[in-house]
This record gives sequence, structure tokens and C-alpha cells, in this order.
Amino acid sequence: MTVQLSRRNILKSTALAAAGFIPAAAAIAQTTKIPSQWDETTDIIIVGSGFAGLSAAVGASNTGAKVIVLEKMPTIGGNSVINAGDMCAVGTPQQAAKNVKDSPELLAQDMLRNGLFLNDPKKVKFVAEHANDNYKWLVDEIGVEFMPVVGFTGGHSVPRAVTTTAGSGSGIIMPLAAYLKKKGIEPRTRNYVERIYRDDNGRVVGLCVREGYRFGKEGSGRPKNIQATKAVLLAHGGFGADVKYRSLLDPKLTEIFKTTNQPGATSEMWKEAARIGGMMIQSDWIQCTPWNNPLEKGMGYTWNFGQYVAGEAGIWVNTEGKRFVNENANRKVRADAILVEQGKGLKAVAVANKAATASLEGRRPGFMDKALKDNLIKQYDSLDALAADWKMPADTLKASIAQLNGYFKDGKDPQFGRIVKDLKPMEEGPWYAMEMSPKVHHCMGGLATTIDGKVLDVSTLEPIPGLYAAGEATGGTHGAVRMGTNAILDCLVMGRAAGTAAATQG
Amino acid sequence: MTVQLSRRNILKSTALAAAGFIPAAAAIAQTTKIPSQWDETTDIIIVGSGFAGLSAAVGASNTGAKVIVLEKMPTIGGNSVINAGDMCAVGTPQQAAKNVKDSPELLAQDMLRNGLFLNDPKKVKFVAEHANDNYKWLVDEIGVEFMPVVGFTGGHSVPRAVTTTAGSGSGIIMPLAAYLKKKGIEPRTRNYVERIYRDDNGRVVGLCVREGYRFGKEGSGRPKNIQATKAVLLAHGGFGADVKYRSLLDPKLTEIFKTTNQPGATSEMWKEAARIGGMMIQSDWIQCTPWNNPLEKGMGYTWNFGQYVAGEAGIWVNTEGKRFVNENANRKVRADAILVEQGKGLKAVAVANKAATASLEGRRPGFMDKALKDNLIKQYDSLDALAADWKMPADTLKASIAQLNGYFKDGKDPQFGRIVKDLKPMEEGPWYAMEMSPKVHHCMGGLATTIDGKVLDVSTLEPIPGLYAAGEATGGTHGAVRMGTNAILDCLVMGRAAGTAAATQG
Repeated sequence: MTVQLSRRNILKSTALAAAGFIPAAAAIAQTTKIPSQWDETTDIIIVGSGFAGLSAAVGASNTGAKVIVLEKMPTIGGNSVINAGDMCAVGTPQQAAKNVKDSPELLAQDMLRNGLFLNDPKKVKFVAEHANDNYKWLVDEIGVEFMPVVGFTGGHSVPRAVTTTAGSGSGIIMPLAAYLKKKGIEPRTRNYVERIYRDDNGRVVGLCVREGYRFGKEGSGRPKNIQATKAVLLAHGGFGADVKYRSLLDPKLTEIFKTTNQPGATSEMWKEAARIGGMMIQSDWIQCTPWNNPLEKGMGYTWNFGQYVAGEAGIWVNTEGKRFVNENANRKVRADAILVEQGKGLKAVAVANKAATASLEGRRPGFMDKALKDNLIKQYDSLDALAADWKMPADTLKASIAQLNGYFKDGKDPQFGRIVKDLKPMEEGPWYAMEMSPKVHHCMGGLATTIDGKVLDVSTLEPIPGLYAAGEATGGTHGAVRMGTNAILDCLVMGRAAGTAAATQG
Repeated sequence: MTVQLSRRNILKSTALAAAGFIPAAAAIAQTTKIPSQWDETTDIIIVGSGFAGLSAAVGASNTGAKVIVLEKMPTIGGNSVINAGDMCAVGTPQQAAKNVKDSPELLAQDMLRNGLFLNDPKKVKFVAEHANDNYKWLVDEIGVEFMPVVGFTGGHSVPRAVTTTAGSGSGIIMPLAAYLKKKGIEPRTRNYVERIYRDDNGRVVGLCVREGYRFGKEGSGRPKNIQATKAVLLAHGGFGADVKYRSLLDPKLTEIFKTTNQPGATSEMWKEAARIGGMMIQSDWIQCTPWNNPLEKGMGYTWNFGQYVAGEAGIWVNTEGKRFVNENANRKVRADAILVEQGKGLKAVAVANKAATASLEGRRPGFMDKALKDNLIKQYDSLDALAADWKMPADTLKASIAQLNGYFKDGKDPQFGRIVKDLKPMEEGPWYAMEMSPKVHHCMGGLATTIDGKVLDVSTLEPIPGLYAAGEATGGTHGAVRMGTNAILDCLVMGRAAGTAAATQG
């Protein structure tokens, strides 16, 4: 017997259904009765129009599958389109031009080391091994344009960051969208997923969507049931902007933390995927950026100064004028270090001179002029003036810079272990300074998936038939700490693989 | 419309049910049809007979509720009964006798600091505030006997560990079981929970149990449906012995790691609680002990030497003869440090002289004699003999001990920050040594619950009516790192509170 159907309950339900009554049960039931009739039918439905969603759409549609892409917000691209556009790649012409020796194995090592070995080693290997062909695919097939320079981002052991000429993730999102448009696929904005339909055999068979949904207005839009004959693919991103959900997983991340995320980075799909039995792993690993400017809303743009100017060729000090961390450590190490300084009542300040801005200006021309004009970075003729303005002891600041300059000359940082090869000592002004304060940025954990994106069931630990996922909605690639520039790589590589698998394996 | 009942499906199900057919769907459906008839009815069903389960049974039954306690293994007590019996308590006579100044606030600070502030601050406060009355309750009402001494355990800032005279957790489990027996409650062993019934209104209403179940023999035992008119309370413990489940959450913890846990510490109830919509948080935080003896199976008993002799009054060295960690840091810090040494091809060795054993012998008389006789700890007349046997340089070992002796005299350890007050320098032999190697020990994460033990739903983040949980099955009290001795405290305090709430609020 084990589990019995209760005939009385079924008959009762039937009577209620006949009377047109929708029981409250529907809101909590972990499976949902599938519609008797579908409003629309397609092969693959993709939820989300960021890096993962659009590359999944390319992968799926290239097999000949019929694909629908849904986006709950009024515009496409989610966090991806406001992303910095810096992508990790291995074996690029940009690395070759700077004689950078790199390999998939070295990238995989960096990912595991920074991820505290909490990563799924199979995913790490897969992503690292595609860090070269992913770059080529973007350039050759999608038509993405990258700058000729390479950047050095926190946690990586060599420079690997290639940057879109657009200077943001839109430089990838827009070409992907144009590529899909030629194939007749246009993401449907304002389409909110209200229900994932998982049938009595455990298969995901479609979605209930609200068309014309207005974000933040519950119940808005017209309900529509769309059937997916092959698969539903979840690429809904993270929940960094959802204070209630994130603080349930990490109680530190209350509303006092701002976020770099767009307002739609909320948890609805996390809850819905969990409701139908999607297994979540490592969701408590929520990354804060170290280097955001508290004067800006959201991600802003002057974080580039913290990372690529002061972090790569300058110095980070607290308002006692002292270095307190490896300026190019991984994000967790640096964000935690800043929180410790803030806990002492101090501020974290990125400091550099004009010469240190050269590398960034090569990638983002006009950056410094704009930031100074916007009053987001401040300029000083002397370190004395800078120190006075930030109420820090000038002598200590000068001593910290002199010490770091010595490390630049030696090519070794015995204080914090920063990689300081080929860096010029900071001697002449003008000097620049900007405060940095952590913001909630990236969800490392998420749905447990196989290499080809199949979502595991909480109960059986086996794939849920018809359900795939990729990108920030999933866990395992990054472990405890995602390295900067690895989000785009992960989303594109795993997204394309999952889209292809969803269309061919269903 | 949002979600529609499909009349055709319902009629089909009805026809199948009438024909006595149990659909395969039952195995994966996230809700389960409740039985048309129950085999037994009670107020509260408690799953698990460890510290949390039995204290919940006391809490519930003291309100007058009818309680059933289920245990899948042939004997009661799970990991609790093989636990060390060292419990965190504040304001005890044992602390007073040693003039230890302590407070709930100090305990809460220690828990948050070691937990990396990933803990739920409300749970921390609740547990810390009951660390005194919990001790009194055990002594005065349950009849537990504690030794007159107090121990100093890793991560705590003052000595707080009181130890049962039985020298293990059985010194608490047996009196709790005797207390319950007087009230007519005896845990039912070999009762495996196959299904949690959650009805169409979202309420948990009972369980399908296999009576006479034999652990490891799937499908054994006779199915029985038990109704809980008030609540089901989950106190099923952790999954430390379940390699597949734990390595899905933390891929490092493969079969190469042994475990201190009893064989029944597996994931069946984790999967079943998740299947019906129980929200899991922080399950990837799985603690390894630092100090287990690799010569012993499971927990063994000689870890006491690593913690309470060498950790409290001796030294930990690697096989280069060098100290490598604060011997009384929290478990994660020490376990990770040992793994680093092992990664270099070295071993971690606990070393102490006879004088250092005094405190432990006060609590576990005869311990050293037994361990030496069992060949689990080795004795040497001189440090030269010890060093030779462990293939470590004697000079380095002697220098490390001399340096630490200096710290003991100064009352300060500038090398690793260990608290070294009131410790005698190690001068005379005989000397003892034992290897230590991490084993999987405790699951910090688990079901998200309110202070009174209500389990949250993954979809609504609100309590699931009729479902409670406590103990290692839950997350939030310990955050990233559980301090030694805090498991008993957490399980008893939260178990009793949840049992009381389940019986009075239902």
C-alpha cells in the first residue's frame, strides 16, 4: 500500500473543479495539475534573457528546435546587460600580445583554489576547457568585438580578462539578441513565470506565464499556459536584490547592504524551482564585491578604479593610511577585509596616481575624465592634500606607498602576497582617491545540475526529466568564491551546452 | 485561471484508484495523497531518538500530548548516544569552582565569531540564554549526573564543557529515555519513515512508517500509516555517513574521508523533508573533526587526547616537529590546518607529557591506561625516542616545545593566539603521542526553522503547518562552524522548545 489515493478527496476535488472553484491547495501543492489545454506549444522554453538564457537559445535553436525565451522585466539582459563586459578567456590574441602564459589547467586551479574546493571539479574542468573556444565562438560566430588589451582580475594568477568594445555586458547581449533575431527568436519581455508544471510522471512539461506582467505588481499580466515538448531551461539568474531571501541564507546580508544587481534579481524562480523539487546546493555562498563606490547606486562604473587602477597598479589603504589586504586577492578576501576595517570605524580608500590609470584608459577611454566630472573620484595635487581630505595621517600614507613601491621594484609583496610584476612605482601626481564599500553581487550556489544542465531532484538526486538550468541560477562552478570575469564564461559555456542538450536529449 | 485542475486527469486517477492501481507518480510527486484510513493516531510523532528527539518528547508530553517517538535503527540515541557527553553550559558550579567568568552574551559572541556570522542571531541568543537553565533542567528534572570539573573546548573563550559521569552522551540519553518511560513513552526502534504526508491544504498530517525495518535493507518492514493530529517533529540528525549526499553538497568530502558518525547518519529524511517542500539552508557546511585517531573506527575515544590533553595542555606538531596551528582553535581552523599538513605529505601529531593528562584524567579516570593498552596512544621515556619513532627531527620538536613552554610562562601565544593561561610548561616525561586525522562529523545546515521549531516552506518561506524540526536536522544555530560541546546544548534547548510548541500550537 505505502501511498494510497484517497478516493473521497479526488471526488471532492472533481466536484470543486466542475464548479469552477480553484482550491487554495494549488498555491502550496508541490506538483501542479497540468492544464487540460495548452495556449501555446513549443520545443524549448528558456526562462531568462541574460548570458545563460541567450546562449542556451543559440545552442537549442542551432539544433533546429523551436525556442521561446521569456523575460519578466521590460527589457532583456538582466544583470548581464549591466555587467562590466570583462570576460575570462584563455589563449587569446590579447594574452599572446602580452606574452601571458596560460592554460585551461591553470584556470581550473585558480577556480578551485579561490572556490575553496567547494566547486564541482567536473564543471570547473568543462568551463576551463571551453575558455578558448567560447571566446572564438563569440568573435567568429556571434560577432562580439573585444578590445585589444587584457586585464588582471582578483584571484586569477595571470591576466585573462578581455573586454567588449561596448565596455559592458551589452556588448555580448546585443550581438546574441541580433543573432537570435535572424533566426526568428525574440525574447518576450514582461513574461513572468508563475508556475512550472511537473506532471504525475515527474516530467516538467510547461509553464504558466503572465504575459504583460509589470515587475513588482503581483497578479499583473494575463495567464497563459505554454507547453514545452522537449524541455524547460531555467536561466533566471540570482537573487542578490532580494533581501528577505538572501538574509534567510546568509543572515549578515540584511538591507544595510546595497546591491550591484538590477531590481529584478529576486527569488521567485528560486522558490518555484525548489517547490517542484529542484535540488539547491551552496545557496548560502553569496558574493559581495569589494570595490563598489558607495556614492553610486547599484553597480555604477567607478568600481573600475578600485579594481583596475588601484587594484592592479595602485594601493588600497584604510583611513589610518595603512594597507590592509592584497589589492588583487579574490573578492571574498577583499570584501571581508573591508568589512573588518569598517567594523573598526574606518573607511577603505582606493588610491593611485595618473600613471596607474594607463591600463584602464586603454580599455575604457575617457573613464577618468567622466569619473572626476561626476565627482565620484577625487583628484589631488599631492598626497598631503589627499590625506587631509580623507582625514588620514599623511606620513603613514606616504610610508605605505613607499613600501609598496619597493615591492613593485622587487617584483614581490611579502606583506600580502599580491602579484606585483611589471608594475611602475607610484612617484608623481596627480593623485586620485575613491571610497570602496561592499555590495551584494553574485549567488555562487543554486540548482544542482549535471554537466549538460540537467536539474537534480531533491528526493531522488537524479535528473528531473524535461528540466535544465544554467548560469547564476545553478551551483557548482564557482564553489565558495566566483572570480571576477568568470560569470560570463560560466553562463555562456554552460548555457550553450545546456541549450544544446535540452534540444537533443529533451 | 492561474492553475487549473484537469478534470480529465482527475477522472483518470479516480478510475485507476478504483482499480486499486498505485501510480508510479507517487514516488516522485511532491505531495502525497493521504491515506483514506489511518492505522494509528496520536498527537505528536517525533522522528529520531537522539538529544533533540527525546528532549522534544519530554517537552511535548509535559503538556499532556500523546507522543510517539520513531527510530529507524535497532537501538536508540543515534549519534547522541556515542557522543562524548561534553556539554556547553554557562554559570555552572563547575565554572564557579574554577572562577570562570562567563555569560550568555559571551557564549553568543563565541558562537557568532566561530560561525562566521552565518548563524541566525535569534537562534544563537535563544540557545545561549538557555545554557544555564538547560543544565539545571538536566540535573534537577531528568537526573543527569555531571563530573565536578570543567573542560576547555576549541573555539570557546572560556572553559564551559561539563561532562556526564558516564563519559558519553548515553549519560543524557539514558536518563531522558528513563524519564519518558515513566510517562509511558518508549521510542519505537526499527521504524523507518518512508513518507511524510502533506495534504492538499499544505498541512503535514502524518507519516508512512515501515515497522520492523532493517537498516540498509530497502523495502524491509511492514508499512503503517500513523496520523499526527497536532504535528510531526523531525529530529533525524545529520547525513555525515552518507557519502553521495555529502559530496553533492561539498565535493571534497568523498569516500576518502572517514566519519565519526554511526552508520545510520544518512540522508533519507533530508530528501523526504525536501520533497514535501522543507526549506534547507547552509547544508554545504559539513564539519570535520580535527583530532580523530585514524587507528580507530568512527569516533573512537582517543580523540580526547588530541582535544583535552595535547589541545588543552600540550602541543600539536607536524612530522617536521613544528607547531602548525592554535591547538584550541575551532574545529574548522584545526581540521583545515591538518589537511594542509597532510597535503604536504606530513602527519599531524598530538604530543603531551604525563602532567598534561591530569585535567582529562579528572573527568575520564583510567583513560590513559586504556589508550596505551589499546596501542592507540604511544608512550616514550624521552622526546628523542618520540621523535625517532615518528621520524621527526628531535631538535625541532624540542625547540617547538621549549617555545610553547615560554608562551605558557608568559600567558600569551604570539605565534597562533592560543589561550594559554594557567598552563604548566611541559618539562618531564613520560611523553605521549598520537596521530590525528579529520573525519566527517557534523552537519551545520539543515531545515530552516523558526525559534520554536516550525519548518519553513521553500515556496512561501512561511511555516509548513504541522511540521516542526530540531537538532542537527536544522540549520542556523551554528552557522559555518559548530563549536565543540554546542551540539548537545542546541539539540536539548531547541528540541524541548520545539516539542512544547508542537504540542501547544500544533
